[in-house]
Amino acid sequence: MGMTVAVDCTGGDEGEGPNVAGAVQAAKDFGITVALVGRTERIEAELAKHATAGLSLPIIAAPDEVEMDEHPAQAVRRKPQASINVAMKAVKEGSAAAMVSAGNSGATMVSALFHLGRIAGIDRPAIGAIMPTLTGDLLLIDAGANTEVHPDYLIQFAQMGSIYMRTVRGVARPRIGLLSSGEEETKGTKIVQETHQLLKTTPELHFIGNVEGKDLPKGTCDVCVTDGFTGNVALKTAEGTAAFMGAILRRELTKSLPRKAFAALLRPAFRALRDELDPSREGGALLFGVDGVAVIAHGRSDARAIRNAIRVAKECVEGGAVEAIRALHA
Amino acid sequence: MGMTVAVDCTGGDEGEGPNVAGAVQAAKDFGITVALVGRTERIEAELAKHATAGLSLPIIAAPDEVEMDEHPAQAVRRKPQASINVAMKAVKEGSAAAMVSAGNSGATMVSALFHLGRIAGIDRPAIGAIMPTLTGDLLLIDAGANTEVHPDYLIQFAQMGSIYMRTVRGVARPRIGLLSSGEEETKGTKIVQETHQLLKTTPELHFIGNVEGKDLPKGTCDVCVTDGFTGNVALKTAEGTAAFMGAILRRELTKSLPRKAFAALLRPAFRALRDELDPSREGGALLFGVDGVAVIAHGRSDARAIRNAIRVAKECVEGGAVEAIRALHA
Repeated sequence: MGMTVAVDCTGGDEGEGPNVAGAVQAAKDFGITVALVGRTERIEAELAKHATAGLSLPIIAAPDEVEMDEHPAQAVRRKPQASINVAMKAVKEGSAAAMVSAGNSGATMVSALFHLGRIAGIDRPAIGAIMPTLTGDLLLIDAGANTEVHPDYLIQFAQMGSIYMRTVRGVARPRIGLLSSGEEETKGTKIVQETHQLLKTTPELHFIGNVEGKDLPKGTCDVCVTDGFTGNVALKTAEGTAAFMGAILRRELTKSLPRKAFAALLRPAFRALRDELDPSREGGALLFGVDGVAVIAHGRSDARAIRNAIRVAKECVEGGAVEAIRALHA
Repeated sequence: MGMTVAVDCTGGDEGEGPNVAGAVQAAKDFGITVALVGRTERIEAELAKHATAGLSLPIIAAPDEVEMDEHPAQAVRRKPQASINVAMKAVKEGSAAAMVSAGNSGATMVSALFHLGRIAGIDRPAIGAIMPTLTGDLLLIDAGANTEVHPDYLIQFAQMGSIYMRTVRGVARPRIGLLSSGEEETKGTKIVQETHQLLKTTPELHFIGNVEGKDLPKGTCDVCVTDGFTGNVALKTAEGTAAFMGAILRRELTKSLPRKAFAALLRPAFRALRDELDPSREGGALLFGVDGVAVIAHGRSDARAIRNAIRVAKECVEGGAVEAIRALHA
């Protein structure tokens, strides 16, 4: 049945449950094959809880797993039968077009590098995370893979992000912003200042200059380029602030009986707000720069998040983002 | 009338108007003297718009100004009669206990260093910004002064922040968090990792470990230590996310007539939310490490923000934060 996406069913804080449930939902909603990678008996037990008639949900046995507290590089090398490795090998060998894992994200990166390898011309893989904005989605790259960077890496992040937004998201001429502490090109660290000059002179990129943290949710740019340390801080600060505002709003709206009553009448409005900011809407961040499609889902993913991470993987395959990145330096 | 706080009336996007209005309000609310530094005629014209009988609002003439687009260091040195310099000299000479400026923040830093000097033992001044959290206020230091840092600077930021929260905010044992990309001590840049080890072994600090962006609004720590680049990104991302959520909420609540009507009944709840997140509640960030109290107000400050920045200055003087920082290396 068309495309196959492999799901690492052992990965994630909740184990097989949400992974299998999300896979069933994705197979149904998107009409694709979802290969379930992991401990056969546990996967079968979860599958039995769902209506799967007519769906394509093959199991690929992988008896081992990388624990959340294991050293990623060592565990990946020592455990060839770990589900993350078996799923990644399926992509390498072509039996799956893409893979999704909610497991240890460091292990996913190491396994992807080990099995899929880097795309020629890309120095460092990067994590691309989608953030909601007032005018559409934004890709933040790097959202956490590279704590220390070099201007050349940041240029490659910009190129890969631009390709993704064009091929997968249909943005004709993605606007690239460089995250800094001010709009002027003299603002930011030395690396940011150097990168600014390089981005200005990279012809295929539509560089709009520096962007500040406050610009991110405005939708000023389609791709926000930064190092993995700053990107992680920005992404998590945005998540934390959204949760904080939600908590204050809830506190205010439950302060008295009349407030509770009026708020109940506005439930659809609050639900729309929550949905707009729901991290499970995207479900996963993409690993850019490895030679294949790998989606990193959150460790706390529920079935909906896994289903949506599978959608992200499928869209990335359909858009041909990896092929376009490969063509950059061909 | 007790303490004198000098206000740079030329500074800020709106010039004398909000500065004088905020000063009048502060003189009335706090019973202190507010010295108005700037162009005498313009200040007098603004003063005439307010009821000032019985208030102590002397004018200190300063005919010159540093423009927002001037090079801060050059302008400060070339224009001794600029209002920022005259206000800072008033602090140096003791005719004012503190100063507030909504002008060019780079110029305020340079002028503070030039006139007040650094406190012995402090390598770099830092900007401390207050962020609201679920359990009280948090001090983020550095919020923008130092783009490149050294672990020693970060330790000093932690010490100064801890002293501020103790002496001015009355937190008995301020919890120090180090902003990083993960909780484990191996997470973050090399500088962050080195700083983590140093913070663990600095006896007078109550170091609670790394904090992530998502922890900031939870109130996990009282002082969040970071470099000025990351701090700027975190602070502005939080501001931008709050504005974004406000915009979506407004959009949802005005989508239909019934929604508008129910939302009107909940106006006090939404106003409480807005007030909690209002940047003008604090009005100003403190410049730590210079030998005197200098408060940097936002360029877009309104009268309320200036009034509150004067309150921040007054509280800092009363708490004796500068004296306590001086005693660190005495």
